[in-house]
Amino acid sequence: MNKIEHIGIAVKNLEESNKTYAALLGTTHYKIEEVASEHVKTSFFKVGESKIELLEALNPESPIAKFIEKRGEGIHHIAFYVDDINKELKRLKEEGFVALNEIPKKGADNKLVAFLHPKSVNGVLVELCQEDTNV
Amino acid sequence: MNKIEHIGIAVKNLEESNKTYAALLGTTHYKIEEVASEHVKTSFFKVGESKIELLEALNPESPIAKFIEKRGEGIHHIAFYVDDINKELKRLKEEGFVALNEIPKKGADNKLVAFLHPKSVNGVLVELCQEDTNV
Repeated sequence: MNKIEHIGIAVKNLEESNKTYAALLGTTHYKIEEVASEHVKTSFFKVGESKIELLEALNPESPIAKFIEKRGEGIHHIAFYVDDINKELKRLKEEGFVALNEIPKKGADNKLVAFLHPKSVNGVLVELCQEDTNV
Repeated sequence: MNKIEHIGIAVKNLEESNKTYAALLGTTHYKIEEVASEHVKTSFFKVGESKIELLEALNPESPIAKFIEKRGEGIHHIAFYVDDINKELKRLKEEGFVALNEIPKKGADNKLVAFLHPKSVNGVLVELCQEDTNV
């Protein structure tokens, strides 16, 4: 794990939350992106070498809608940057972590991503991500 | 906000969780510290310019014990590093954020810390921290 790539935060209203996080961080979001496969609309803020990703559900099927319904708004996941996502996923499965994705998939911000089940990481939803060179 | 200083994760058993996070991050914790004022025992792992802080409750009065009782293990807070915590706290209160500490207090890892109420930050408990030069 090279660094914390981003922290994902589930919010009800992206437009309002963008204002809140701009005030908090002292910087505005540098992009907004819809990830249709995950049913989310996201915005990104830079903080040092990491990012804050705000996530709003596009519809009730979205994992973010279900998360907010169950726990309210708040931190949804931590993403770590890795150089080789396939190699790291293999290593972590051998260590006993439970992968939610056997094969990395396309995520937001030109990344290949894969998730680890929170049950194997003390209740933390962990995302691995690597730059997608096939964009 | 200069960078994500650390992410605090509430765990039931620090010793077991240290093994889990060593396997996840590919590095062992670099220190263990008790913070009596917060009723917690903590361990720290380096990831890039940031840290992962695991937190175990020392007793049932600990905020971490209450958090786990209510929500289970998981991400407890995000800490941002600032150069001048008093100035930043003043700025954020003027922006409408609700401070849980009017005056920064001593935290773990030789830091002065202050928290913002999650209700003013989309359900996220935000910690500000600055190096404590009076250690």
